[in-house]
Amino acid sequence: MKPRIAIDMDEVMANVEPKFQEIYEREFGKKITREDYWGQKIYGIREEVRYIRDFLHNKGFFRDLEVMPGSQEVIRELMEDHEIFITTAAMEFRSSFEDKYDWLHEHFPFLHWKNFVFCGDKSIIRADYMIDDHISNLEKFAGAGLLFTASHNIHEDRFVRVNNWMEVQQYFRSKD
Amino acid sequence: MKPRIAIDMDEVMANVEPKFQEIYEREFGKKITREDYWGQKIYGIREEVRYIRDFLHNKGFFRDLEVMPGSQEVIRELMEDHEIFITTAAMEFRSSFEDKYDWLHEHFPFLHWKNFVFCGDKSIIRADYMIDDHISNLEKFAGAGLLFTASHNIHEDRFVRVNNWMEVQQYFRSKD
Repeated sequence: MKPRIAIDMDEVMANVEPKFQEIYEREFGKKITREDYWGQKIYGIREEVRYIRDFLHNKGFFRDLEVMPGSQEVIRELMEDHEIFITTAAMEFRSSFEDKYDWLHEHFPFLHWKNFVFCGDKSIIRADYMIDDHISNLEKFAGAGLLFTASHNIHEDRFVRVNNWMEVQQYFRSKD
Repeated sequence: MKPRIAIDMDEVMANVEPKFQEIYEREFGKKITREDYWGQKIYGIREEVRYIRDFLHNKGFFRDLEVMPGSQEVIRELMEDHEIFITTAAMEFRSSFEDKYDWLHEHFPFLHWKNFVFCGDKSIIRADYMIDDHISNLEKFAGAGLLFTASHNIHEDRFVRVNNWMEVQQYFRSKD
């Protein structure tokens, strides 16, 4: 059986940052860059910014996110020797289900819906590898966790870090 | 850590049969009983009946299904000593996501969305027990599979069979 890789969507396959930077600019009337919230999430920088996290509940939020550079090519390559499952913690956001499903079909048409998983607590996932930006997901995972760099996880050093999809590609190529 | 039970929705927590019997009667102008399709699914009995399976894609189909007798009480009891995850193969049916989510919240308000899983291939599920009416799901499961009786699985004898929720209750009580 091929080794199985569980891949997270947000901040791994789908780039959430540009959309939140736009929202920030619209709400607070000034631009924000990644450096301004380095070390945390954009909505974690000040108390009065926290409410913009609620935009995640809006219908459509997840439908037009940018595709993370290299993710399509690398996932397609990984499929040759691995089972790929897309495992996303969608359950907090009822209105995200159809958006995420359509987004996956649009940008990753070579993946089968049988390999999509919408869940809450990722400890339910049985796989050999997990690529995720959230430490809490990797901590509960029984296989090998790869931490995909995001602003909020830069101080973490317990997991193999991958900064981008080229590094994911290198990691698995070096295993072959 | 508490042992974890993965529980299927359709034909285990949610009773799909009455709705399909209604559809059959409406489409073919005559009543059908469980005995008429014993040994298979209702839409498997004749070639010209097969299309009624497509009703599963209709928005609303999964929203008003009857709750399987005893499921609420027994699941609530099982939660005392087990982690409960609801694992449903929803991915084939895009329009089922919100319906299933709302149905769970309405009828099982004591379950947390963190413990809901919408998937396709259930081999991704990591749990100790799985209660399911589909043999294909139990075959790929690494833990102990409990086959919940449905018309289409009556000839199977490789798994522990539970005919109803009282038998699920007895099974787990006898383990304590």
